[in-house]
Amino acid sequence: MRTEIATLGEFGLIRHLTEGIAPVNPSTRYGIGDDAAVLAYPADKELLVTTDLLLEGVHFDLTYVPLKHLGYKAAVVNFSDIYAMNGTPRQITVSIGVSKRFSVEDMEALYAGIRLACEAYGVDIVGGDTTSSFTGLAISITCIGEAQKGRVVYRNGARETDLICVSGNLGAAYMGLQLLEREKSVLKGNADDVQPDFSGKEYILERQLKPEARRDIIRQLSEARVLPTAMMDISDGLSSELLHICTQSHCGCRVYEERLPIDYQTAVMAEELNMNVTTCALNGGEDYELLFTVPIGDRDKVDAMQNVRLIGYITKAEAGCTLVARDGGEFALKAQGWNPLQEGQAK
Amino acid sequence: MRTEIATLGEFGLIRHLTEGIAPVNPSTRYGIGDDAAVLAYPADKELLVTTDLLLEGVHFDLTYVPLKHLGYKAAVVNFSDIYAMNGTPRQITVSIGVSKRFSVEDMEALYAGIRLACEAYGVDIVGGDTTSSFTGLAISITCIGEAQKGRVVYRNGARETDLICVSGNLGAAYMGLQLLEREKSVLKGNADDVQPDFSGKEYILERQLKPEARRDIIRQLSEARVLPTAMMDISDGLSSELLHICTQSHCGCRVYEERLPIDYQTAVMAEELNMNVTTCALNGGEDYELLFTVPIGDRDKVDAMQNVRLIGYITKAEAGCTLVARDGGEFALKAQGWNPLQEGQAK
Repeated sequence: MRTEIATLGEFGLIRHLTEGIAPVNPSTRYGIGDDAAVLAYPADKELLVTTDLLLEGVHFDLTYVPLKHLGYKAAVVNFSDIYAMNGTPRQITVSIGVSKRFSVEDMEALYAGIRLACEAYGVDIVGGDTTSSFTGLAISITCIGEAQKGRVVYRNGARETDLICVSGNLGAAYMGLQLLEREKSVLKGNADDVQPDFSGKEYILERQLKPEARRDIIRQLSEARVLPTAMMDISDGLSSELLHICTQSHCGCRVYEERLPIDYQTAVMAEELNMNVTTCALNGGEDYELLFTVPIGDRDKVDAMQNVRLIGYITKAEAGCTLVARDGGEFALKAQGWNPLQEGQAK
Repeated sequence: MRTEIATLGEFGLIRHLTEGIAPVNPSTRYGIGDDAAVLAYPADKELLVTTDLLLEGVHFDLTYVPLKHLGYKAAVVNFSDIYAMNGTPRQITVSIGVSKRFSVEDMEALYAGIRLACEAYGVDIVGGDTTSSFTGLAISITCIGEAQKGRVVYRNGARETDLICVSGNLGAAYMGLQLLEREKSVLKGNADDVQPDFSGKEYILERQLKPEARRDIIRQLSEARVLPTAMMDISDGLSSELLHICTQSHCGCRVYEERLPIDYQTAVMAEELNMNVTTCALNGGEDYELLFTVPIGDRDKVDAMQNVRLIGYITKAEAGCTLVARDGGEFALKAQGWNPLQEGQAK
């Protein structure tokens, strides 16, 4: 079944897609339907605002990304930015540009993913806008969140001797992408339309197609009364993000290859593709894990946390940013992360 | 001179474009450079959030829109949405998707326009993001503003006997667009590259290329202690917006053709193009004037305001939405406004 978007029109489509949305946050006073959304936050909160623009062909490939997953991911990556400030996401606005290739049912699938993510994370959709596009799909999401006053964590607070921690594991989303790209090129060369076999690779696929934001880590930090000195989420790769924190904090770092958390499926896939798994973990991107630094006195507290790994420590700026390999060799960290403005980069 | 964007990369480009930006609003705690911007608003304010996605070929045509003007307009249309809630814009985030056709200098021009608008209206740029695009230019701007608690004006508060007011004049931006489209097609058919003659048409061109948001009207309303019962900005045409207010307020309206404010240049251009000027004023779009309703007891106050015209009044819903023509004939108002999701509409 395919319903043309033109049959509903802009206002009709938005009404249809946002039907039944009921806000769950007291800070949401008025959502979709006026010139602007109206929010009211108590005075003991600071507000966090982040935004993301995703374009077809650059940030996603619809030949292997289902629209519902795309919607889910588009929302979650914004939530991740709010958690990375030690905050809680509360509202999003969603703008979608859509060409005639897409039907009302396609938009329903995309919105179903966005709404699912919002339900899972307790976030209200307060603004929506659809417009036509000549060239594929464009999704712009802005997320508003809150943090307790004085508890916002920036990238610039890391200090010498602080411990460097990461949540979860690294490189899996990138390996999932490599797998999808491989299957895509296999299918292209094969008229028999063989169904790809993804068994044993579910985890890396899910990390690519349906990432989650680390709300659990923010909760654990709060419960353990640990306030990180610096934090950010890992979207462009660990190396790139570590360099951001070190540059903005005017410090250096030492991280240990043997400490990098890597899932079994990530390692198997890297082996299969004849890639260096450490490189994947350092530069893979799209992990949406949290990278944070804590004062050395908090070591026992972070050791006791679930899904958190100490990978190194902060040094003086003059010491540079160093990866200590398994064999004791030392390498300067480089930002080779995903950068869609530079050619020849890993996607 | 043309500098390729790839020479700077994503982070370099954003750093370059946002260099020297210093916030002017006390509510801006931290701007560009972290996972999210940090804002702090006092408890007596409500927050307003609006967002817009502009796509090349759909919302703008770079053959006749200079990039600096485009940047200015992209920001101002968001400010207009905040004023339309009886608020004041304070912060914007800017996401730009850009293809290789564009140079660093192009992005400088676009950003110069955005920054100029922000300076003129006292708004801080707190978030920026650029990414590559395969297909032209995409601009997504989110604006955050504030209103005094209890002073937000929605679309749904109009009541029977309220007076209907509009600021400025209508149809000029649409006539400016028609003029630009005509010159474009003339130039296409003419190899001699004749410079178009726009003398005597400066006003309608400016209304199309460099619209302003009606901050002055919001100030006047505040000074006169008039709180409109309903308000919105006119972006899709007066008819369409009146129908929004009437639908959401569960009422009808009567507006008078002879009361519609129309500039001399708009009338001349309509004549030249053999178009009905009333139709242009009703359906033209992109005026960014304010449409609002006030209790009948405020009549003297709005009469005394600069650049505000009474055009009719609110009725019971059963009376419908009616335009009373000069000759006394009555017509049902229809939304024929600009809708890029429906084909065959005026652009």
